[in-house]
Amino acid sequence: MTELTLRQLLDRVGSGEVAPAEASARLLDLLRAAPFEDLGFARVDTHRELRQGFPEVVLGLGKTPVQIAAIAARIAQRGQTLLVTRAQPEAYEAVRVAVPAANYHADARAITLAQGDMPKGSGTILVACAGTSDLAVAEEAVVTAEIMGNTVDRIYDVGVAGLHRLLSEQARLQAARVIIVVAGMEGALPSVVAGLVQVPVIAVPTSVGYGASFGGVAALLGMLNSCANGVAVVNIDNGFGAAAMASLINHL
Amino acid sequence: MTELTLRQLLDRVGSGEVAPAEASARLLDLLRAAPFEDLGFARVDTHRELRQGFPEVVLGLGKTPVQIAAIAARIAQRGQTLLVTRAQPEAYEAVRVAVPAANYHADARAITLAQGDMPKGSGTILVACAGTSDLAVAEEAVVTAEIMGNTVDRIYDVGVAGLHRLLSEQARLQAARVIIVVAGMEGALPSVVAGLVQVPVIAVPTSVGYGASFGGVAALLGMLNSCANGVAVVNIDNGFGAAAMASLINHL
Amino acid sequence: MTELTLRQLLDRVGSGEVAPAEASARLLDLLRAAPFEDLGFARVDTHRELRQGFPEVVLGLGKTPVQIAAIAARIAQRGQTLLVTRAQPEAYEAVRVAVPAANYHADARAITLAQGDMPKGSGTILVACAGTSDLAVAEEAVVTAEIMGNTVDRIYDVGVAGLHRLLSEQARLQAARVIIVVAGMEGALPSVVAGLVQVPVIAVPTSVGYGASFGGVAALLGMLNSCANGVAVVNIDNGFGAAAMASLINHL
Amino acid sequence: MTELTLRQLLDRVGSGEVAPAEASARLLDLLRAAPFEDLGFARVDTHRELRQGFPEVVLGLGKTPVQIAAIAARIAQRGQTLLVTRAQPEAYEAVRVAVPAANYHADARAITLAQGDMPKGSGTILVACAGTSDLAVAEEAVVTAEIMGNTVDRIYDVGVAGLHRLLSEQARLQAARVIIVVAGMEGALPSVVAGLVQVPVIAVPTSVGYGASFGGVAALLGMLNSCANGVAVVNIDNGFGAAAMASLINHL
Amino acid sequence: MTELTLRQLLDRVGSGEVAPAEASARLLDLLRAAPFEDLGFARVDTHRELRQGFPEVVLGLGKTPVQIAAIAARIAQRGQTLLVTRAQPEAYEAVRVAVPAANYHADARAITLAQGDMPKGSGTILVACAGTSDLAVAEEAVVTAEIMGNTVDRIYDVGVAGLHRLLSEQARLQAARVIIVVAGMEGALPSVVAGLVQVPVIAVPTSVGYGASFGGVAALLGMLNSCANGVAVVNIDNGFGAAAMASLINHL
Amino acid sequence: MTELTLRQLLDRVGSGEVAPAEASARLLDLLRAAPFEDLGFARVDTHRELRQGFPEVVLGLGKTPVQIAAIAARIAQRGQTLLVTRAQPEAYEAVRVAVPAANYHADARAITLAQGDMPKGSGTILVACAGTSDLAVAEEAVVTAEIMGNTVDRIYDVGVAGLHRLLSEQARLQAARVIIVVAGMEGALPSVVAGLVQVPVIAVPTSVGYGASFGGVAALLGMLNSCANGVAVVNIDNGFGAAAMASLINHL
Amino acid sequence: MTELTLRQLLDRVGSGEVAPAEASARLLDLLRAAPFEDLGFARVDTHRELRQGFPEVVLGLGKTPVQIAAIAARIAQRGQTLLVTRAQPEAYEAVRVAVPAANYHADARAITLAQGDMPKGSGTILVACAGTSDLAVAEEAVVTAEIMGNTVDRIYDVGVAGLHRLLSEQARLQAARVIIVVAGMEGALPSVVAGLVQVPVIAVPTSVGYGASFGGVAALLGMLNSCANGVAVVNIDNGFGAAAMASLINHL
Amino acid sequence: MTELTLRQLLDRVGSGEVAPAEASARLLDLLRAAPFEDLGFARVDTHRELRQGFPEVVLGLGKTPVQIAAIAARIAQRGQTLLVTRAQPEAYEAVRVAVPAANYHADARAITLAQGDMPKGSGTILVACAGTSDLAVAEEAVVTAEIMGNTVDRIYDVGVAGLHRLLSEQARLQAARVIIVVAGMEGALPSVVAGLVQVPVIAVPTSVGYGASFGGVAALLGMLNSCANGVAVVNIDNGFGAAAMASLINHL
Repeated sequence: MTELTLRQLLDRVGSGEVAPAEASARLLDLLRAAPFEDLGFARVDTHRELRQGFPEVVLGLGKTPVQIAAIAARIAQRGQTLLVTRAQPEAYEAVRVAVPAANYHADARAITLAQGDMPKGSGTILVACAGTSDLAVAEEAVVTAEIMGNTVDRIYDVGVAGLHRLLSEQARLQAARVIIVVAGMEGALPSVVAGLVQVPVIAVPTSVGYGASFGGVAALLGMLNSCANGVAVVNIDNGFGAAAMASLINHL
Repeated sequence: MTELTLRQLLDRVGSGEVAPAEASARLLDLLRAAPFEDLGFARVDTHRELRQGFPEVVLGLGKTPVQIAAIAARIAQRGQTLLVTRAQPEAYEAVRVAVPAANYHADARAITLAQGDMPKGSGTILVACAGTSDLAVAEEAVVTAEIMGNTVDRIYDVGVAGLHRLLSEQARLQAARVIIVVAGMEGALPSVVAGLVQVPVIAVPTSVGYGASFGGVAALLGMLNSCANGVAVVNIDNGFGAAAMASLINHL
Repeated sequence: MTELTLRQLLDRVGSGEVAPAEASARLLDLLRAAPFEDLGFARVDTHRELRQGFPEVVLGLGKTPVQIAAIAARIAQRGQTLLVTRAQPEAYEAVRVAVPAANYHADARAITLAQGDMPKGSGTILVACAGTSDLAVAEEAVVTAEIMGNTVDRIYDVGVAGLHRLLSEQARLQAARVIIVVAGMEGALPSVVAGLVQVPVIAVPTSVGYGASFGGVAALLGMLNSCANGVAVVNIDNGFGAAAMASLINHL
Repeated sequence: MTELTLRQLLDRVGSGEVAPAEASARLLDLLRAAPFEDLGFARVDTHRELRQGFPEVVLGLGKTPVQIAAIAARIAQRGQTLLVTRAQPEAYEAVRVAVPAANYHADARAITLAQGDMPKGSGTILVACAGTSDLAVAEEAVVTAEIMGNTVDRIYDVGVAGLHRLLSEQARLQAARVIIVVAGMEGALPSVVAGLVQVPVIAVPTSVGYGASFGGVAALLGMLNSCANGVAVVNIDNGFGAAAMASLINHL
Repeated sequence: MTELTLRQLLDRVGSGEVAPAEASARLLDLLRAAPFEDLGFARVDTHRELRQGFPEVVLGLGKTPVQIAAIAARIAQRGQTLLVTRAQPEAYEAVRVAVPAANYHADARAITLAQGDMPKGSGTILVACAGTSDLAVAEEAVVTAEIMGNTVDRIYDVGVAGLHRLLSEQARLQAARVIIVVAGMEGALPSVVAGLVQVPVIAVPTSVGYGASFGGVAALLGMLNSCANGVAVVNIDNGFGAAAMASLINHL
Repeated sequence: MTELTLRQLLDRVGSGEVAPAEASARLLDLLRAAPFEDLGFARVDTHRELRQGFPEVVLGLGKTPVQIAAIAARIAQRGQTLLVTRAQPEAYEAVRVAVPAANYHADARAITLAQGDMPKGSGTILVACAGTSDLAVAEEAVVTAEIMGNTVDRIYDVGVAGLHRLLSEQARLQAARVIIVVAGMEGALPSVVAGLVQVPVIAVPTSVGYGASFGGVAALLGMLNSCANGVAVVNIDNGFGAAAMASLINHL
Repeated sequence: MTELTLRQLLDRVGSGEVAPAEASARLLDLLRAAPFEDLGFARVDTHRELRQGFPEVVLGLGKTPVQIAAIAARIAQRGQTLLVTRAQPEAYEAVRVAVPAANYHADARAITLAQGDMPKGSGTILVACAGTSDLAVAEEAVVTAEIMGNTVDRIYDVGVAGLHRLLSEQARLQAARVIIVVAGMEGALPSVVAGLVQVPVIAVPTSVGYGASFGGVAALLGMLNSCANGVAVVNIDNGFGAAAMASLINHL
Repeated sequence: MTELTLRQLLDRVGSGEVAPAEASARLLDLLRAAPFEDLGFARVDTHRELRQGFPEVVLGLGKTPVQIAAIAARIAQRGQTLLVTRAQPEAYEAVRVAVPAANYHADARAITLAQGDMPKGSGTILVACAGTSDLAVAEEAVVTAEIMGNTVDRIYDVGVAGLHRLLSEQARLQAARVIIVVAGMEGALPSVVAGLVQVPVIAVPTSVGYGASFGGVAALLGMLNSCANGVAVVNIDNGFGAAAMASLINHL
């Protein structure tokens, strides 16, 4: 249950569509349940959707397929929307047994299952990336933003070494309400994009590169030192985090 | 001229308040002017207000008082709002000669002069900080957010070692539309705040600390690795950047 | 022989249960033995139990299964308690041949064999961890603390992004005599825990995370810069070291 | 009020020394007071003594003398014990105006004022340091431990390059209940000490050294990688933190 | 004597303008002189002009004014062109006593004295910088390039956050034979410039910035990871080195 | 079409060899084509050859063989010269299907296909490397320089520990117009080479080494701090970038 | 030919054992040979034995088995002593084909073939290591020192956490002329050893450890900051380099 | 008393020059004295000369002038040779009061007083440095080596960018028994020197440089990765440590 469905329930009580007793029963069920479910190795935060607008998301990294599947099953059984990031194919195999309807997005390395009504964001989230090698991170952002109820547009491979590729997309840049910019190597794209638009830019450094890119540190530092206004940064390769931030903004 | 004043002008043309010829003359003046003014050592971006909603902001760091005063004079003479960050008292002395109406905010190390109508942001920007030593950075954020047309609330010295100080301010946390969290040392406050609210959190690491804080690196890394959703990070001590980002979000 | 068994022996001499000649013979055996046994590639510290309260522990990392088995055999043959940390399954296979009674704790990657009386610690050691991915390190701490004679309690997956999961466990936090807090990513949990209790907190950063976690450095720095009192830190992923420290405290 | 004085109060109620009405009045006063006092730039945590056994300690670093004096005055007026660390002489000048009884420890850069009964720790805390240059940090630990109610012993300038200086102090090492070891440069002393004793060792790296000591990083890393058991580490130059940890252990 | 003046001498011998005996005497003088002059604390490389086209340049950093003046005097007395970089005003005061004709360039922190014919470079070296704070480094490059015989053009304050400032200078960019790009903070300007031109770009990171700029490391890494072709990098703040490289290219 | 072939076309129009109508048709074709081709995951920069003298080069790292082959096919079909760097054998297998004439250089890990006339550089590019282990990077530079139209000379295994190996090649050093110096470990070779010649030196640090070479950082820092003039540096292992820079210089 | 065999030859000429003509012929052969042999991918330094007392040593890291075998064959064919370090078993397989008499030291990962007379060092080189995991590096030092003509003694697993293991070997420590100390983790052993002896100590940090050992950086920094006199350091895991240095000292 | 003077005493007893009773009295005095003298803030190691051949050396860094003078007085009163390194002029002023005969070496920042007979080293220690800015560190090495009883030769300003300055000093290089090479910036000089000689080279990186020299880290890493044999490294700017090592070698 989200803030939206809570309000809808109460509206329907107000309009007589739902009897107070029925609403009361549903709310009591919710309140009686513990705000988390303890699996021993994990405490599934069952009230997070109510508190923060989206159910707990599962970070696949560092968990076994069996652990991921067990957590995913709990979330799915509660009728909540499921998102597992950094999921290897073996994790998906395990999840599919418990949650047959779950989907796998290979490019984004993500497992999803949309359930219930997700409130729609007001505008479009644009995901831009500098090069083909940034695709996995960009797609993680796209999958996340979409399942969180946002319309998403993509502009890929528009790195600063060939500015005309970016400048030719001015209309789409201006049309976005929030922009996620994904870039590795020198990480200069967010500065250039933020200089062209009047909306918030979430910068995602990627570990793409070699040598003195130091696994994304060069891009991260470049973005943190951006001379443009309206840029904030998330962790290296954190497409999910950028999309969660963008979605919050787009739902204001 | 901002997007807002442009729209107001055209509205008044539409309603007959302003004659098309007069509006045309004003717009031609604007278009004839170069989009920047070259002072030799600096190119003042005179169209930035139109392009990005706020005039060029002057970073005082690394510029001489004389350079700062010259740039400030140009901005003030154009009737634009002036903001100089990282300004030492000597810089203010120099600016005051050319721009007598300019104000100095000693805590925030900022010079301001509000001119013209700034569009108002929709909600409140809350600035929270972990300790007394983070005050200069927090105040830079406050001054910036206010001059950019936002209502600002402050909660200071609510670090995670005494959680009750933060938990007692839940109402103000929930009332904010965007939250800026300023913290040095281990930089854990943004994670805790973001776990309690449903709005975007802009995290600002500060160079407060010693030893293994490495001038703010510990706080920066902590914030980039936040396990909470809805956190994005700006540079160490960059109160200005956080506020510029928050203002963009608050003006959507 | 530990300090405890030495005292017990002398007590029994005092009470006449053991003849002085017999005690003398046993002590002479001990004193005649070299304080270490030289295997060429290793010097097994045979007096460490007497000197420090627990026999030498074998760090499995960087040793071959054959080397581990040889050292383990020497320790077991002396009737001392065996603990091998960072032990791969192949190491266990090798150890089992020489020490058939040895146990393998797969989650903790540890081999153990309890022998003799271990003095009991006064209170409970609580092991808390921030996320499911920290489990291996937390379990290493649990196995170590238990074999060193401590009662252990576990609270897992209580990261700071969902504070209510931790706050709901206040009673168990207050009941502990020493707390080990295991966390990766931003490593903020020890600060929050230490702010809630009045007992020593041993913080263990883990290499859980990606990007700017730098293999646990972000968590390590966060913990070293903790603004809470009563926190000390061990090496990244060093569940063993935290438990050894906690056990010393618990045996004071 | 500490846990100890609370218990004493109730004991005296039980024995009839204090009338229930009087005790009740005192407790109500305490409960009615906010758990912190908001000075705008600081929230003084007035219940910390009750919660954690010692009142809030003021870190002088990054605060102005005026701010320090204001906070110190509030703490002193409540009858609580005052400790300001990293206090410059100017801070002491400011504090002395408001709190004339406050003392200044120049070597330790600390301001103190003992008020009320502090529960005594069970044993001795030994503070050892490797060289003369580590003295300021060692003295900060000594002053902190003493004001927190501990008996303290000192062994200074016993670095590992002249082991006989340390080995000649075996008796004092064995007599301690907790040992704080302060060392810069290669930071090897805690490993050696921990190999000789059976009590917890708190290691404090110092920024003493030059070149590849990197402001204490070499010592910090050495201590984190200690091959000895029973060593935990605090931040570089954090004599206070080590003593706070040691005092907690000594009061168990 | 440079390669050029050597060739001119021999040409004049060939054309009869100079008698072989006279030329022979001059060459013998040169060959008899040691290829360096030993001042004890310095060995002035007297043949460097012949070997590398420009006399030894004096790095003022880390030398006393007295040492600088002594070396400068030797170079000037030999009729060679003098360049001292990183020269403080006190160094200039000392040099002026020995070499009264020497000039001081305060912005560039350089001392110069042009002597003899310097061969002219083929085209123009363009020095561009991202912000006003990069001016000292850019001017060091300008002064160096000019005294090495190059025509220099300047474009200052054209950072990537306001691309139109750079794009409006396309003609001057295309007219250059070599381009030096000086930038701090995220250091993105060289990538953008190199994407617009077909000539070599020498990138100079500057220590301009704060926080995560780490004294120019962010800019340095950004430039090393440039996704544009035709970019090579020199040390942080090394305007001199960039100009020396550019001059070599311009003299090919 | 490069600048050269454009000029040739117009020359032939001027001399009557080509009819204006035919030339006009060819130029219109070019202008009508978008300046890039959007493959979804990549935007192939089809005008780069015209703008920068060489078609877009494909960095194989981080792209799948299928992606590489698709991009390579587009470039080859346009009659442009193909260069894929960091190409694994599997990438070559995929490319060969679409572009059967493509060659694989196993040492250099590069795929090439020369098409059309490439303008010739004026002099020789010398590629020197310090040790046998630097060969892969040196060969990447050689293959790149050759396909960009340069004559290349090689001197391998001339590290500074045996200077006579380098000094015996003075003639070839003096004969080069640009020198690429490839070195790992301490990276001292570029300084020594630049001290012997009067032409630009492009330094390429390699990740060859172990321990404190930190994957090439030691060599990178050594080269950035070179005390010799005329040295500029590219990323670690970036043989391609060095050759692209050298080729630009050689084509001036 | 080494300095020793050269002297022996001339002695025999002086005593009439060898005819001047024969000696002259042998020396001419040597002088006529190039001082290195160019294999294309490597220049074998054939005069290094004469110049530095030991033939060129082959670092196996980063070379293919085929390259290693080719270089080894050239060295062996000249009658020089062969040493290949960091040699995988496959490299040995390749070398054995060309040099059937070569030996493989699996612990030390080294290939050797002693040929000719190596001058004997004056004293004993002692190799000490802190733990069993340091064995591979220690053995590389042993194999190197032995083939360079030194008598070697070993003391293994004497880390500082159990000092009595080291102190019991005082006699062997005092008997050595040079000591190589190999240690990972905190790297404290060299300081302790150097405090006990009066001979040079060569410290070798190893990459043994985990977490904040950072691949040997902690040990390296510890050794560089040693507070004991008479310690110098080589690269992480560089057992060979330590032995080469020790051998030079032992042959003085 | 050193090993040498002890032997001389016994020789004289053997030859009848000194009566056994007198020798016995002197030795008893020595044995009765504690092996260190405790000043509270320092433990002066009074037996170090006997144990290690040279009395305790005082590192001036981090000690107050008063502390330095007190330690110096104790050493001087015992008739031992005094060496204080990193001594500011104020420290010398304080020492001179207590030890009027002490000398100050301003270039080397050292205080010395030679007392008693120091055994002479066998050969010459050569101190070479790369540039004029390395002079302070080089002189610290010279002063140290001389007072420890060595003959010292100096070659200054022979950096690798002008190799002929070094190659012209081959004779002095070959004449040395140990060579100390001091260099900042890229730190390449030790590799080149070690390739030319057959004696041990002690490399001292200096903090000379700027930008990416990172206070000497670039030079340090270069030296640790030296491809030449016979190089070992000490801490950045540690001229004293290099000389102490060289002296030990020279006294073997």
